[in-house]
Amino acid sequence: MSKLRIGIIGLGTVGCGVYKTLADFPDIEIVKIAVKNINKPRSVNTPEGMITDNHYEIINDSSIDVLVELIGGVEPAWEYISAAIKNGKHIVTANKELLAKKGEELFNLAEEHNKVCLYEAAIAGGIPIIMPIKTILAGNNINKIQAILNGTTNYILTKMDVDGASYEDVLKEAQELGYAETDPTGDVEGYDAAYKITTLATLAFKKRVKLENVYREGITKIRKEDMAQANEFGYKIKLIANASIDEDGNADVRVHPMLVSNDTTLAHINYVTNAVAMSGHPIGSIVLSGPGAGEFPTASSVVGDILAIQAEFGTTDYMLPMMRCHHEHRANPVHIDDTYNKYYISITAPNAIGVIAKIGTICASKNISLASILQREVSENNTADIVVITEKCQERLIKEVVSELDNCVVNSLIRVAD
Amino acid sequence: MSKLRIGIIGLGTVGCGVYKTLADFPDIEIVKIAVKNINKPRSVNTPEGMITDNHYEIINDSSIDVLVELIGGVEPAWEYISAAIKNGKHIVTANKELLAKKGEELFNLAEEHNKVCLYEAAIAGGIPIIMPIKTILAGNNINKIQAILNGTTNYILTKMDVDGASYEDVLKEAQELGYAETDPTGDVEGYDAAYKITTLATLAFKKRVKLENVYREGITKIRKEDMAQANEFGYKIKLIANASIDEDGNADVRVHPMLVSNDTTLAHINYVTNAVAMSGHPIGSIVLSGPGAGEFPTASSVVGDILAIQAEFGTTDYMLPMMRCHHEHRANPVHIDDTYNKYYISITAPNAIGVIAKIGTICASKNISLASILQREVSENNTADIVVITEKCQERLIKEVVSELDNCVVNSLIRVAD
Repeated sequence: MSKLRIGIIGLGTVGCGVYKTLADFPDIEIVKIAVKNINKPRSVNTPEGMITDNHYEIINDSSIDVLVELIGGVEPAWEYISAAIKNGKHIVTANKELLAKKGEELFNLAEEHNKVCLYEAAIAGGIPIIMPIKTILAGNNINKIQAILNGTTNYILTKMDVDGASYEDVLKEAQELGYAETDPTGDVEGYDAAYKITTLATLAFKKRVKLENVYREGITKIRKEDMAQANEFGYKIKLIANASIDEDGNADVRVHPMLVSNDTTLAHINYVTNAVAMSGHPIGSIVLSGPGAGEFPTASSVVGDILAIQAEFGTTDYMLPMMRCHHEHRANPVHIDDTYNKYYISITAPNAIGVIAKIGTICASKNISLASILQREVSENNTADIVVITEKCQERLIKEVVSELDNCVVNSLIRVAD
Repeated sequence: MSKLRIGIIGLGTVGCGVYKTLADFPDIEIVKIAVKNINKPRSVNTPEGMITDNHYEIINDSSIDVLVELIGGVEPAWEYISAAIKNGKHIVTANKELLAKKGEELFNLAEEHNKVCLYEAAIAGGIPIIMPIKTILAGNNINKIQAILNGTTNYILTKMDVDGASYEDVLKEAQELGYAETDPTGDVEGYDAAYKITTLATLAFKKRVKLENVYREGITKIRKEDMAQANEFGYKIKLIANASIDEDGNADVRVHPMLVSNDTTLAHINYVTNAVAMSGHPIGSIVLSGPGAGEFPTASSVVGDILAIQAEFGTTDYMLPMMRCHHEHRANPVHIDDTYNKYYISITAPNAIGVIAKIGTICASKNISLASILQREVSENNTADIVVITEKCQERLIKEVVSELDNCVVNSLIRVAD
């Protein structure tokens, strides 16, 4: 087995975890680590001279075999990675945003230079998902994914559920504990999960999904009343990354909150844990769950990718053939208005009399069946709180229903998982 | 990519699934299928002359690259596989019994001839577990596994729980439905799960575990009263394959029923679904679940292994380096009496008066703490049903407690998962 020489870009939480984990692997030599600020305090002690703030000391060092990119974001990561590939280096990256936005260019460039670009750590942290799809599941046509891919939002939703607390209160607490960032937008608005499902769906469906075709809705409008109501109906509310593809290659890929039944594994995935449920033929359905982030779980995936490169490095002209990504075909996007879902609708009606009849009439006029309907005690001022769960219907029609419910306040409209 | 020529031994349920699935892979050619009885009706139509009852038509055909063994059992599978390796063939097998009993010889023989022997389908059916441990999880020291590896027993226990039915009644129903065999011993006494955990622990711990050191207890003594009682305490009863290893290489590997808390994923794995929970460093804990058997899920794993061989076939002198198994080190066995567990004990005492005190005194004398204790209403004849859950203590001591409970009937003694 050849000794593999690697350069690491970025020495934050994950970088430190990778550094510590690689200490057990004497056949992998960390030659250089490039960071923005050399003087920042870190949880590892690196040998004199190993750290640089000149990233090109790695990129231009022809003795380095692999660039491990752990800085995130599109630029300058793309500049560094593309230069490194052109300079003959294999890539290991945890960069979900880059993959979602530049995946096609990245993998084409890598193939052009006969290099591999591995990215297990970019999706679902420590959970083994990317390499298994590429290898042992390669005989499958996967056509459906439902996944919890963002730990911050799952933490917030779990706390809201367990404590009966509001989104705002739990967010504040999560920020204090370091589970949510000062600007939480990337997580709570679903961007992070959208990046991940874009890449995961592309790989699983063997057709390129474009980020701009991924519908996205965050969790900021979920009310504690919705959590309580969902519980009563036997559901939890989770931020679910969904992807499905039909036989004609139409891919419906989206991230939004969903009610998921307590009968499913996803309903029991709590706090910062992530999970990926997939189905297809011949395998049927599987669920993989585990830590979606963190120093060591993410390091497990980064190091796994490095070890895969090491195992075949120098032994063949075309390394790791199963682990390459070249998706020539594109998925056809499906607009959210054209999708079919079940819906949870929470309504406050100013005048309780006749409102159930009105809802029923409007839904019936659009051929929408109601699975459950619950009217709370009418308050003194004669307003009524009503919760409806519909059977499957087209998103376009449910929007019409909502707009026709004049005189009512629609508090929440949340999709319900099958 | 070279066209891969394979021979299949065994065309039962899994064999037919593999045959059907490979129809989508024109670069894999099924050259010959050997069966015991050519005339048996099957769910696939094979071309004229493809099926033979002379297994050596495959083994001795030097144009065949891979032997896919799907007959199960030690002999004649071992005869065929060892002859095939010596004749230069790679092996894909679903044979858990052979792996548990002959794994060391098998992998040594394969290495000696520079062949790979892949066996994803042998453990947990369709769940991707073997290849992920070998590849993307290779940077980890896995030190604990808790798994549901037998669908038949999980089906029986789930039905007992859901229907409040007895073991005998559910077994009969399971046999009628084809979920349990006419002679269910291999499943219900835990042999099947013991085979699987032997191989899984060997791989995960990177030390050879011997089948004769795997403690084994089946589910035949689980009473419907135990299921009900476990529910009341917030547990389910599952047949759990356990394996843990300490830093000195002492491996505690066993299969027996356990109470698992409703807070865990394993408690929610129902009917024929399998699941593997693993933990170690750096990954932390992950749970992989899915179909543990069946025509197509098992075919997914067999075909995944075949595709892995195909991907690298002919490209290098040392194919699939990460997927080889050579465990020179042996795990030290830990005797069940030396293990530490929590215990559920169901006792019927003929004389209710003083029995709680007696149990308390006996446990206290051995430094065993009690976590929960519940005495049912005393019946007319003054007998009392008592259920105790202990804190962690040594198995040896709990056996002493049971033997000292004279005048009491110990209905059940079941270990409780941490």
